[in-house]
Amino acid sequence: MRGRQSAAHRRLSEDRTGAASERLFLEDLYVGQRFVSAVHHLDAEQIKTFAREYDPQPFHLSDEGAGGTIFGTLAASGWHTMAITMRLLVDSVPLDAGLIGATTEVSWPRPTRPGSDLQVFSEFVDILPSRSKPNMAIVTMRAETRDQDGQVLQIFTAKMPVFKRP
Amino acid sequence: MRGRQSAAHRRLSEDRTGAASERLFLEDLYVGQRFVSAVHHLDAEQIKTFAREYDPQPFHLSDEGAGGTIFGTLAASGWHTMAITMRLLVDSVPLDAGLIGATTEVSWPRPTRPGSDLQVFSEFVDILPSRSKPNMAIVTMRAETRDQDGQVLQIFTAKMPVFKRP
Repeated sequence: MRGRQSAAHRRLSEDRTGAASERLFLEDLYVGQRFVSAVHHLDAEQIKTFAREYDPQPFHLSDEGAGGTIFGTLAASGWHTMAITMRLLVDSVPLDAGLIGATTEVSWPRPTRPGSDLQVFSEFVDILPSRSKPNMAIVTMRAETRDQDGQVLQIFTAKMPVFKRP
Repeated sequence: MRGRQSAAHRRLSEDRTGAASERLFLEDLYVGQRFVSAVHHLDAEQIKTFAREYDPQPFHLSDEGAGGTIFGTLAASGWHTMAITMRLLVDSVPLDAGLIGATTEVSWPRPTRPGSDLQVFSEFVDILPSRSKPNMAIVTMRAETRDQDGQVLQIFTAKMPVFKRP
């Protein structure tokens, strides 16, 4: 399924980074549509602050705690990488109904380290119209979170409901 | 694959809640092994604080912003539910190597609301020995996050590396 592609939407998907202004409805979406987020700079303090509250394992709290583990030195909680990714997606993928994940998959090919500049590259990889609700579809988005060297730190896939213009 | 089951491990898996003291290695694990976490009380302020930083969509920020959306009233970001779940898992599933997800799946059958008492019920559903590393296996854990009425708010599945005693 491939929606209308106005020049504005093409420009929006191909050129822009950062905050969203136009809102996208189902008619505006197409498989292969891409979005690039702003950049988030991650430092050791942010990593430790998140970990103390939500994932207080030694390798997320200090370099010393990470010694002798598979991480070696301080690494962010995967859920911290995911939370930052969500923030970058909210600001870069302007679905009118919002980004509401029904089912999701997350994997981390590499640890997220302090000093990383995180950026999210997302793409709609499938659009499945609802059988029962003609104004609705489920869009599958695949989002890679990369560091400043282009290394993929996280792969996130989400199925999200999207709607036609009222 | 089914590891040794000492009385201590049976007791640990069936009776206990909250903080972990014994550390579990691969030899201690078996399919069907269960853990119950402590309870986390979630209020509206926590929901809004998390959302402002990581998921600032209107339905995660106020009741007013949720009106007219599929949520109706304030609902927590799914990543907030996941982050709290991780904290409850870290304190209740005492794997010696830590809880390190290689690949994960998360879904949310129902919204997480302010006033919920969140508790995580987890179970090892598969243990797959490594072909190349005899001291290692991949354990699959399935964790349900439930509210005080027993409603399942989140289903989380993770594949994690586990190791034998050194």
